[in-house]
Amino acid sequence: RYSTHSRGGVSGMEEILSRVVAPLPSYETRDKSPPPPETNSLEFMYFYKSLDKEDKLCFLTKLSQDFGVDHKSVSELALKLLDTQLRDLATILLAEDRLRYTLTPRYKQLFSHISRVEGGVKFLVDLRADVLEIISSKASDSPHIRDLNGALKSLLSEWFSVGLLRLERITWQSPCEILQKISQYEAVHPVRNWTDLKRRVGPYRRCYAFTHAAMPGEPLVVLHVALTEDISDNIQSIVREFATLDSDEDVNKINSAIFYSISSTQAGLQGVELGNVLIKRVVRELQSEFPVMAQFSSLSPIPGFSAWLQGLLSQCRKEGRAFDLLSEEEWKEIQHATDSTPGTPTVDSLRKLLSSNEWMRSERLCGVLEPVLMRLCAWYLYGEKRRGYALNPVANFHLQNGATMWRLNWHADTSPRGVANSCGIMVNYRYFLNETSKNSARYLQNKVIAASDQVLGFVSQFQKASKL
Amino acid sequence: RYSTHSRGGVSGMEEILSRVVAPLPSYETRDKSPPPPETNSLEFMYFYKSLDKEDKLCFLTKLSQDFGVDHKSVSELALKLLDTQLRDLATILLAEDRLRYTLTPRYKQLFSHISRVEGGVKFLVDLRADVLEIISSKASDSPHIRDLNGALKSLLSEWFSVGLLRLERITWQSPCEILQKISQYEAVHPVRNWTDLKRRVGPYRRCYAFTHAAMPGEPLVVLHVALTEDISDNIQSIVREFATLDSDEDVNKINSAIFYSISSTQAGLQGVELGNVLIKRVVRELQSEFPVMAQFSSLSPIPGFSAWLQGLLSQCRKEGRAFDLLSEEEWKEIQHATDSTPGTPTVDSLRKLLSSNEWMRSERLCGVLEPVLMRLCAWYLYGEKRRGYALNPVANFHLQNGATMWRLNWHADTSPRGVANSCGIMVNYRYFLNETSKNSARYLQNKVIAASDQVLGFVSQFQKASKL
Amino acid sequence: RYSTHSRGGVSGMEEILSRVVAPLPSYETRDKSPPPPETNSLEFMYFYKSLDKEDKLCFLTKLSQDFGVDHKSVSELALKLLDTQLRDLATILLAEDRLRYTLTPRYKQLFSHISRVEGGVKFLVDLRADVLEIISSKASDSPHIRDLNGALKSLLSEWFSVGLLRLERITWQSPCEILQKISQYEAVHPVRNWTDLKRRVGPYRRCYAFTHAAMPGEPLVVLHVALTEDISDNIQSIVREFATLDSDEDVNKINSAIFYSISSTQAGLQGVELGNVLIKRVVRELQSEFPVMAQFSSLSPIPGFSAWLQGLLSQCRKEGRAFDLLSEEEWKEIQHATDSTPGTPTVDSLRKLLSSNEWMRSERLCGVLEPVLMRLCAWYLYGEKRRGYALNPVANFHLQNGATMWRLNWHADTSPRGVANSCGIMVNYRYFLNETSKNSARYLQNKVIAASDQVLGFVSQFQKASKL
Amino acid sequence: RYSTHSRGGVSGMEEILSRVVAPLPSYETRDKSPPPPETNSLEFMYFYKSLDKEDKLCFLTKLSQDFGVDHKSVSELALKLLDTQLRDLATILLAEDRLRYTLTPRYKQLFSHISRVEGGVKFLVDLRADVLEIISSKASDSPHIRDLNGALKSLLSEWFSVGLLRLERITWQSPCEILQKISQYEAVHPVRNWTDLKRRVGPYRRCYAFTHAAMPGEPLVVLHVALTEDISDNIQSIVREFATLDSDEDVNKINSAIFYSISSTQAGLQGVELGNVLIKRVVRELQSEFPVMAQFSSLSPIPGFSAWLQGLLSQCRKEGRAFDLLSEEEWKEIQHATDSTPGTPTVDSLRKLLSSNEWMRSERLCGVLEPVLMRLCAWYLYGEKRRGYALNPVANFHLQNGATMWRLNWHADTSPRGVANSCGIMVNYRYFLNETSKNSARYLQNKVIAASDQVLGFVSQFQKASKL
Repeated sequence: RYSTHSRGGVSGMEEILSRVVAPLPSYETRDKSPPPPETNSLEFMYFYKSLDKEDKLCFLTKLSQDFGVDHKSVSELALKLLDTQLRDLATILLAEDRLRYTLTPRYKQLFSHISRVEGGVKFLVDLRADVLEIISSKASDSPHIRDLNGALKSLLSEWFSVGLLRLERITWQSPCEILQKISQYEAVHPVRNWTDLKRRVGPYRRCYAFTHAAMPGEPLVVLHVALTEDISDNIQSIVREFATLDSDEDVNKINSAIFYSISSTQAGLQGVELGNVLIKRVVRELQSEFPVMAQFSSLSPIPGFSAWLQGLLSQCRKEGRAFDLLSEEEWKEIQHATDSTPGTPTVDSLRKLLSSNEWMRSERLCGVLEPVLMRLCAWYLYGEKRRGYALNPVANFHLQNGATMWRLNWHADTSPRGVANSCGIMVNYRYFLNETSKNSARYLQNKVIAASDQVLGFVSQFQKASKL
Repeated sequence: RYSTHSRGGVSGMEEILSRVVAPLPSYETRDKSPPPPETNSLEFMYFYKSLDKEDKLCFLTKLSQDFGVDHKSVSELALKLLDTQLRDLATILLAEDRLRYTLTPRYKQLFSHISRVEGGVKFLVDLRADVLEIISSKASDSPHIRDLNGALKSLLSEWFSVGLLRLERITWQSPCEILQKISQYEAVHPVRNWTDLKRRVGPYRRCYAFTHAAMPGEPLVVLHVALTEDISDNIQSIVREFATLDSDEDVNKINSAIFYSISSTQAGLQGVELGNVLIKRVVRELQSEFPVMAQFSSLSPIPGFSAWLQGLLSQCRKEGRAFDLLSEEEWKEIQHATDSTPGTPTVDSLRKLLSSNEWMRSERLCGVLEPVLMRLCAWYLYGEKRRGYALNPVANFHLQNGATMWRLNWHADTSPRGVANSCGIMVNYRYFLNETSKNSARYLQNKVIAASDQVLGFVSQFQKASKL
Repeated sequence: RYSTHSRGGVSGMEEILSRVVAPLPSYETRDKSPPPPETNSLEFMYFYKSLDKEDKLCFLTKLSQDFGVDHKSVSELALKLLDTQLRDLATILLAEDRLRYTLTPRYKQLFSHISRVEGGVKFLVDLRADVLEIISSKASDSPHIRDLNGALKSLLSEWFSVGLLRLERITWQSPCEILQKISQYEAVHPVRNWTDLKRRVGPYRRCYAFTHAAMPGEPLVVLHVALTEDISDNIQSIVREFATLDSDEDVNKINSAIFYSISSTQAGLQGVELGNVLIKRVVRELQSEFPVMAQFSSLSPIPGFSAWLQGLLSQCRKEGRAFDLLSEEEWKEIQHATDSTPGTPTVDSLRKLLSSNEWMRSERLCGVLEPVLMRLCAWYLYGEKRRGYALNPVANFHLQNGATMWRLNWHADTSPRGVANSCGIMVNYRYFLNETSKNSARYLQNKVIAASDQVLGFVSQFQKASKL
Repeated sequence: RYSTHSRGGVSGMEEILSRVVAPLPSYETRDKSPPPPETNSLEFMYFYKSLDKEDKLCFLTKLSQDFGVDHKSVSELALKLLDTQLRDLATILLAEDRLRYTLTPRYKQLFSHISRVEGGVKFLVDLRADVLEIISSKASDSPHIRDLNGALKSLLSEWFSVGLLRLERITWQSPCEILQKISQYEAVHPVRNWTDLKRRVGPYRRCYAFTHAAMPGEPLVVLHVALTEDISDNIQSIVREFATLDSDEDVNKINSAIFYSISSTQAGLQGVELGNVLIKRVVRELQSEFPVMAQFSSLSPIPGFSAWLQGLLSQCRKEGRAFDLLSEEEWKEIQHATDSTPGTPTVDSLRKLLSSNEWMRSERLCGVLEPVLMRLCAWYLYGEKRRGYALNPVANFHLQNGATMWRLNWHADTSPRGVANSCGIMVNYRYFLNETSKNSARYLQNKVIAASDQVLGFVSQFQKASKL
């Protein structure tokens, strides 16, 4: 419908932008201005979608630079504000309000209008995904792009506030379209086929998603729950076991809710926290379905542990500090168990060993490695930080939510992926419901991690063993 | 649940506010701060609802004064911004962003959190209704209250943007709860009973409403449409005729869609334009149902005409300028027709005449008054302005939407209410679909009213007759 | 669409019938015959609906007489069957099957086809209502009409078997159309206005209906339930009390479910028992909503008691056996209380007294009458029979369902209607869930009425007092 | 719940049956009898499902023999009926009604009760599937079993009458559970994977199913339609083409509706015609969606053609009548094309050739075989009969519905399955809407097949070529 925009690259962009992005009305007439015609928004969307990656960068750069804030007006109003400081409050408040209004980027208005047309909100979510990709890939270091990102995030935060989200339980009765998306979005434990999927929405399982009125049929964040007797210590029993596929749930066997996968589906909603709210809502939902349910816990992967460990070993070897990590006996046992060729430093043998998943098949090696890897992993989760918060993103997520780092589980994910990522170790972040608020506040404000005795025990073993 | 707040008036308020309205996090930690517990929002809502009107005013005044913007920080940052003007853009942008952030009133955060709990959005809509009531009743002239209103309006505008609204057609199959509300909210032509209501959602009628995901079951703005052969020139045939109640619609008899009532239901959404968008959506809906439908028009009341006319007559009499309004012959005819007691000035007779609806029953009086009232009414609608826009609010609404002031109709609403309000005259604002955008822009920007020859004819008669 | 059937009365009917009611295919080709075109069914329906009452009778008589069973074939096949009695079983079975097939009335096929078109099932339900009306009004005593009724009933019984019924809970959220019907159909305690209706579907109330896939939006039988602390002993507290209209239900105050009204809505479904099944389903529904609910009871009217009593008094007077009903003291007290004019026989005074509802206002009269009326009423319910079953139809209904005649309640329905029908007395039929099957069987098979000690006490008082 | 039925085979069965299958009430009390408790039905269902195949046969034999009709009563009433022949009609009608009642098998009552419990209807559908299996596998030749089948069929016919069926359009938005079933039930062109399935419910396709109120979520008969420009002459373009998967439908490219697959899913509903009604309903549905659509046609497989042809060739060879089928030239060409070893009779070469699908790859062979196979196939479809109706079941189905045998298509199904079944030939049965009623009647009553000139041309070629 929007005829050929073949009016050559940059000038075409400029033409579109100057036509479509309306100037900010004057402060006085801001409530009197007619909204621009809907076709403006549609044209912008259509044009943007037709661009390739490179042109998008160029276009967004233009948009953010030339259609943002009018710096001159801002500084004038800032000056005026300072001049009013000794006057009455009404005058000050008015000056502030004018300043606030003038600090609105021109493109923010456009985004508001876009949000009103069909598919507009989804378009903006995807637009922000592009902006984030530009920033993280360092394709641009323009501060304007960063401002654009901020404006988008603040709008999306308003629209995706919880009052507008709808909790949906996904079952085998749900539309195929949604189930297919659930399957595609599952990032933690990939769905292999439709039987696998059917299992994940069948008896002894729950699958919940948030959807949004402006993006119907699109799950925004998905939480998979297993209903079990005890808190699960491995993922195989959850995603590989099909015995119960056709059975009816026996309520008496359900004491625990295990969150074994949570996936955000919209890159563009980064920083708009939905996952934590989803967990809270689901806990309430489960409590109303199972009034006596008392145990809520995640069974979480530990992405990055293996990589971190390899890095650590490599560094220790370089610095000749291998004994800081493992005791002499431990190194010896490893040497024995690996039959490493004489002359090879054991650190290298160990690194090589861990780079494949062969060792999992040897009971002896497993026996030797378990205590070592468990205490190293505990340290990785508990002790490694980034700006004071847990380095591991999954840990950081659950700790922010107020969970307790509760139990490390050996042989918990024996899939090739699980072994490669975290030597097969998984961790339960447990939600003690009457402690989560307190835990969350202490973590976010004071960076204190709530952890169980098991975890703290491993951490202290690590600290004794190493002089790190 | 929220135990007795009997901690005595003002100090109780202060205690609540200081506990519940969290301070703005520092700019650096703004993304790292945990949201306050939901119970804060619930406690605020519960407390506010328990207050009586006077205490609400006191409470809102406190909230707006003590939990708004930190003026000191703002002026410091304004100063800092001015200092950066010669530095690089990144620095300027950052200074602007800090300033923008600091201009956020503390209570705005609270409102965002409230919007997330169940019933929160509706609470804020109602809260704003209270604020508007305070402002319009002049219960307070605090500039802070005005700021509070501005902050609420901007939040509500985001949440009630069109992408989040749902168009619902209301029928006799709709939930009773909704139909009862439709009935209660109908302000233009009151619904008398359930048969009357059934008629308004039955054959040859359409009733549409916008609802919002965060306020389920609550129609926000309601539009009643009659499907007719020709553009209706009176309301009786629409709301008093029940012949077709059980008949099937004959598509061949449907050429026109008459918007005969539009009501906003939420006082708190004043200024958040929903009505115009609803009309546009409904036009689209009707076009898809009746592809050949060509005539869209309102049949609108003219509230305020009688009052304006009485005022005008009174003033003219005082100023002795009665002949500016009616010609000598006209005055004579009125004198004859009214048999006014000799000595009474005819202006007074006329004023008295128009203050009841007796004259409607006299054919002779009607004959005399029709040309006079029609041209006065045309002038009232077309010529009387407020800040340059049509004084009559209904006219202003449809003209903003791009409608044309199309036809004045004599004897169009013969109900007591209709005669009392506008001497029984009604007006069609007609929507010529390919002119509405242009009309809307011309009206809003240049204050030009699109009007038909009939209307302009009356206006010019008025101008000739009077020397006003 | 089906053009003017002005082809004059009877011959027009005959023409239609012979064209539309297809002959029964031969036994051999019965599975090979194409169904007649749908237009046949539509034409029949259209024609029938256009007839007035008298013509309907004529038409149905023709249909039942001339398009029923082929008696000649039947008797031939009956003869043939007798001839096969000494042959092998296969031959006998075949002869039986042919006979069975030939006993199918021709019109039964037509009805099957009608059931397949839109609105067809509803048409047949209404058709049967007409047939029943003909029979009960003795407009015809044709045995063919009775056969027609039998055939319709057997078809309707199949279609309205429980597997095809859907239990719907009616609330204020239900479509207005359904609620309006619920209101119209309520025969036991008429709904006065929409607030009254809202009450009956609001908190502490439940309203359930069966609907049928072939008659969407049409409640077939409606049950009103009040949720109370104790088993209600009067109807005022249920239908006149609005205190709880906006309150939330407090589960702790709900111990009893009182069925206070059950109405069948389709005259044509007489004899197709839906009410009993509805009560059973609702009990299950309530048990799942309130797992600890233990008391289920009706609060039922006693239609016919007053009329029966007047008849009895009149007869006793005629036969001079007044003392068989009331003791001498009782008669005296009544004489005193009524101040009856000397000379008037007290029986007449009593009859007159009971024919209005004045006596309800006199405490003294109430005191005198209570014991008398209660024991007479107990006898009416328990002792008066028709073919061995309870004469009172409401009693018969609940006793068939297995309820126990549990408690007579004085001053239980003080509405004019209630006093006129049953001197204000109502009765609880209580459902002891683990006795209903047994009770039902004993009542239906052995005509034994399960009754409480209270009821049996009154009955025995009656038996002692009277020599009836 | 229904405790161990380990009471040993036959005696256990007898015990259950005599307890659960209630005797027919006497004619007089037939409306007065309480229904047996629901647990009877549940116990019967539970018991039957627990039996293995052999025991089911034994059980059903007992049920049908010992709980059918009371032959003695039947013959007595038949005798009585004959005695009444000279009496008044009321007496005759009553005797007939008694006889009719007595001809009801006892088990029919049981089935009615079973239909009322949850899952009961589905149970009976499956029970009848077992009965049909017993009959067709000749596991029993008991005439009682045949009677049982008849009784079940007549009940199911009532319950599955069209008024109770619901047409559902299946899309990618439909519940996964239904789509999985659609996929499993597709017998004509098997669904290979979920993308394939998505295609069949996506743009330019329609998929419709009948469901029934008593068997929710269970499609009973499924019709797949392709929306095309012209009447499709091959199936590849329908089920193998994915180009349009994400496109929007262009209404201007839709002139034809091609029914390319229709599958019944419930073996137990054999003889209860749903497929024909579904086609009619879908035609109406499509006409309302595409008012100008003018071409409706199937694209149908020809199961059995290859087998029939092999049989024919084999027989001709035996009887030395090969020249009756193909002309001398044709045989010669085949000989050349096949390079058949000298000495091998060409008939054998041809049979061998056709038994694999190699020949499809040779253009020469295809050229030689096309005219031969097309005329043989036309004859197979048009000329081969069973009891006067088309032998081929698919042809018989569409001809009964009133379709015209319209076009044979060469190379229409080149899948291995298609070549193996019908040498890759498919046929269009075309629905000329204003001829279907007439065609259907002529076919069913007079066994006349409506066919196009193309088909009749092939048939006449065949007749000329052969002396069959």
